[in-house]
Parts: sequence; C-alpha cells; structure tokens
Amino acid sequence: MALEQVCEAGLVRAFGFLGKRWNGVILGTLSTGATGFAELRRGVGSITDSVLSDRLTELAEGGLIERTVTGARPPGVTYSLTEAGAALLPILGQLTRWAEQNLPVP
Amino acid sequence: MALEQVCEAGLVRAFGFLGKRWNGVILGTLSTGATGFAELRRGVGSITDSVLSDRLTELAEGGLIERTVTGARPPGVTYSLTEAGAALLPILGQLTRWAEQNLPVP
Repeated sequence: MALEQVCEAGLVRAFGFLGKRWNGVILGTLSTGATGFAELRRGVGSITDSVLSDRLTELAEGGLIERTVTGARPPGVTYSLTEAGAALLPILGQLTRWAEQNLPVP
Repeated sequence: MALEQVCEAGLVRAFGFLGKRWNGVILGTLSTGATGFAELRRGVGSITDSVLSDRLTELAEGGLIERTVTGARPPGVTYSLTEAGAALLPILGQLTRWAEQNLPVP
C-alpha cells in the first residue's frame, strides 16, 4: 500500500501537469525539432497566442521544453523538447492509442 | 495537423477520465485479481466509502472495470478489470515512473 501511495502521487502530478488541453499537441509538434512561436502556433492549430504563450511557460517551468534565445538580429526565440519531454512522447502515444481503442467517443 | 487533432481528442478524453485521484490506485489494486468492496477499500487506503463507490461507478461506466454479482447468500459483489482496464495498467506504470523521474516534487 505504501508503494501504491507513492505511485498515486506520481500519477496525480503527471495528470495535473499533462491534463491540460494542447499540451500533448505542443509536445508532438516539437518532436520534429526546435521551432519558433509563429511556426508552433501554425502547427498546433486553433490555439490563441495568449493560451499558447501560457502553455509554453508552464511546459518550460515543468522542465519539458526549453526556450533558447538566438543571437540573430532581431533576436528570436526557439522552443525545443528537453530530455524529460522527449521521454514522455512515446508514453503519450501509447495512451492516445489506448484511448482511441478503448474509450467511447463522447 | 488533422492527425494531431485526432490524437489530441484521444488524449484529452483519456486525461479527463483518468486524471481523477484514486483511479490509478483502484486499477492497480484490481490488477491482482477480482475483489470485493471492503477489500478494495482497505487496499486503496484513506478513501471514503462514498468516493470509492463513485469511482467504481465511473470506472465501470467507462468500461475499465466490471461488477459481478455472486450467487452466494448473502449475495456479494466483486470488481475486476476488463480487457481495456488491464491494457491501461502498463501505460500507467510507465507514466508513473516518468513522473517520478522527471517532475519536481511539489
């Protein structure tokens, strides 16, 4: 039971962090390489600038993505997956396939 | 992008369904075999009867567990994982390990 409680804490944190809309798509879009804000916005679809900006901040604070300021003029910002973010992608893929196969469409 | 939107829908449904506290522990407790309400309650820990009862109803409606009324006198009820519920367990295990390794403890 002690072990289960530890696992539960991990799961609840993971879901609290990842259960927000768009985070899966943002991580998926970054899986093909570092990209800038405008490109990311086109990749993600109907998200607004302010929501995308909030999600990027949360994902960076959680250590899943990192923000790099490029030295060019004008300076640009690119986003890329960290090792932790990249490690999560195959698990999200499995969870998505499981959901498609097993959860009734609402 | 169309594919990503489909995946997003699956992920959002999975997280909406699974992000509730206790569901991971309930599924984990049932992984060792069918069990009754009282035994499940002891296995899960500090959950209340009414919350456990709600979670079991939701998990059964979602097709992750099934409820079997035994013919004994007095009749009893046992809960067990469905095929879909059993298929989810290894993914939850991976997600838990990922969270333990990658998410900062709050």
